[in-house]
Amino acid sequence: MKKIVVLGAGMVGSAMAIDLSYNYDVTSVDINTQSLKLLEKDYNIKTINLNVNDSGKLSDLLANYDLVLNAVPGFMGFNTLKTIILAGKNVVDISFFPEDCFELELLAVEKGVTAIVDFGVAPGMNYFLLGYHYKRMKVNDFKCYVGGLPSARKLPFQYKAPFSPIDVIEEYTREARYMRNGKIVTMPALSEPEYLEFDSIGTLEAFNTDGLRSLLKTMKIDNMLEKTLRYPGHIEKIQFLKDAGFFDTETIELKNGAISPIELTAKLLFKHWKLEDGEDEFTVMRIIIEGEADGAKKVITYDLHDKYDAKTNTSSMSRTTGYAGTAAMNLLAKNLYSNPGINPPEYIGMDDECYAYVLNYQKDRGIYYNLSVK
Amino acid sequence: MKKIVVLGAGMVGSAMAIDLSYNYDVTSVDINTQSLKLLEKDYNIKTINLNVNDSGKLSDLLANYDLVLNAVPGFMGFNTLKTIILAGKNVVDISFFPEDCFELELLAVEKGVTAIVDFGVAPGMNYFLLGYHYKRMKVNDFKCYVGGLPSARKLPFQYKAPFSPIDVIEEYTREARYMRNGKIVTMPALSEPEYLEFDSIGTLEAFNTDGLRSLLKTMKIDNMLEKTLRYPGHIEKIQFLKDAGFFDTETIELKNGAISPIELTAKLLFKHWKLEDGEDEFTVMRIIIEGEADGAKKVITYDLHDKYDAKTNTSSMSRTTGYAGTAAMNLLAKNLYSNPGINPPEYIGMDDECYAYVLNYQKDRGIYYNLSVK
Repeated sequence: MKKIVVLGAGMVGSAMAIDLSYNYDVTSVDINTQSLKLLEKDYNIKTINLNVNDSGKLSDLLANYDLVLNAVPGFMGFNTLKTIILAGKNVVDISFFPEDCFELELLAVEKGVTAIVDFGVAPGMNYFLLGYHYKRMKVNDFKCYVGGLPSARKLPFQYKAPFSPIDVIEEYTREARYMRNGKIVTMPALSEPEYLEFDSIGTLEAFNTDGLRSLLKTMKIDNMLEKTLRYPGHIEKIQFLKDAGFFDTETIELKNGAISPIELTAKLLFKHWKLEDGEDEFTVMRIIIEGEADGAKKVITYDLHDKYDAKTNTSSMSRTTGYAGTAAMNLLAKNLYSNPGINPPEYIGMDDECYAYVLNYQKDRGIYYNLSVK
Repeated sequence: MKKIVVLGAGMVGSAMAIDLSYNYDVTSVDINTQSLKLLEKDYNIKTINLNVNDSGKLSDLLANYDLVLNAVPGFMGFNTLKTIILAGKNVVDISFFPEDCFELELLAVEKGVTAIVDFGVAPGMNYFLLGYHYKRMKVNDFKCYVGGLPSARKLPFQYKAPFSPIDVIEEYTREARYMRNGKIVTMPALSEPEYLEFDSIGTLEAFNTDGLRSLLKTMKIDNMLEKTLRYPGHIEKIQFLKDAGFFDTETIELKNGAISPIELTAKLLFKHWKLEDGEDEFTVMRIIIEGEADGAKKVITYDLHDKYDAKTNTSSMSRTTGYAGTAAMNLLAKNLYSNPGINPPEYIGMDDECYAYVLNYQKDRGIYYNLSVK
């Protein structure tokens, strides 16, 4: 039985460890003992309390395992992945670090390490599905609309953050990079809102956020965009806060000291955005791939609508991100995929067998990417 | 020639001093020398640099004048008025202090001082006009809609504060007191929005603010309300900030110290709300008085739409507030009104001669209260 170590026992990391524990010898590692205790108590998972930032100790630890799943927070993801590659271990990374993954390409090739990165839902499955069709047709246009939302639409925000709220604000402020007519262009976050209709949800509003990451380098497609989905009205409020200066990072002098408006805003929004334990939420994604195959125009659409699992108290964000990542981990464990170097999801989707395996793996867990072809 | 001292040389105080200087011997007093210099340079106005909070010095000063105009900021208005009354001087007060003016009633009577308070536009002319009709018919319903607005509707707020922005926020947070079916009720500020149409402006949105002040004591009318007018969309943004916690007064711990959200919010809003010198703005007010006279139903409406005067660079807020106040000052100077005690505008409006005088005085300055009777 292969030995897998999961670095990070947060919401998604824990869900992945649990999923893998039914077929592998799994150890979860975290600096926080509380989440480890829960895993040890209820599941067949070993745990180790360790600060992953200590790269010496981490290297020693990694020597004992066959495969690594990197599920640490984004800000420490890149360095952790580097340590894993240096240790010569094949890895799936879902830390979504901000650095360019290809900076580690040479190192991974040199070490003979297959590093699968960004294999969640978005980034992740959206890139993976595009990769599959990219190999089979001339793709001219790729659009991805994605959001994680609470089922209850509570004013004023109608929103709960299924991951760290500070990452949501970061998404609302960072410029969005797109491919338009073969050129990379940047647009302000939140710009170009449009309404889309979804069965059983109704109308959602999509707006620009920076989500194309590796695709801007790996795909030769004239037009690519990713937009984030929210309930109508949310984005108008965020845009207003931004316009009024509440997202400013420059400090302002107040009686008790200098503060940056975004620091206060983050604190206030977190109160509203905190996803409560057991709170019903869902993930919705629509991918539209347009192009030509055999001389005919082709439009391929995937629709995902995944919900919180009350039985196991697993959030939809954990399910869709985590079970994509564990599917990828199975590809490595079963030797279905091997390619020394950095492998974003679009590379793996190009492989027929991997495509079928990853979709079936998630179908078994009730996650359906509904395909329609025109 | 009567000697008048004007306490406070802010925007409105200066406009009043200038208006009075054509007919009286006027002295302006302020702690800030800059505004005094402008008055001294361009007008026939004497100036004295004094901290009005020093009641000993203020008393000494007042001894030299026949009449006093109190135009200091609201927070110091009550104490200043008390000093003026103690000095035995007849006074017009447009400081709009938050305390109950009638607390000074006995003192004013004892000193034989006629103190006219709250004689601006609103409070001021709205109370004055109601007073006139209150004496002549059975009034069942009084409604006043009033706002000071910039001509340019710049997003996100479409608003500039013609007076201190902190007073605007105070208006947006203080509970509103109303008379409904003969009982005083309180409603949250910003509540019960409604749209109203105005010639040459279009649609404005009215919402509850606390504006009835002395009327709740002096008038026996079953239904009275005052609402503030803004461009549609403004109030929704303010309500959102309030709901999201940006008007909270409890402190929140941040890296550099504890701050109250409202302190930061005020700073940020002031940047957007600052009325620039020479910026075009206007005052709009609609008063609807319903009741019975001679057994018939009667509806009396006054409409005011006053604009910034570019020729003299006088804001509409200064014109409508200030020239109401100087009209009242003329009533005292010309012995057209005398009633030892505290006199809110509704008392003075009851007098035929005063009613005609005050309206004509403002008409001479291009301020029209257009009356229609049904």
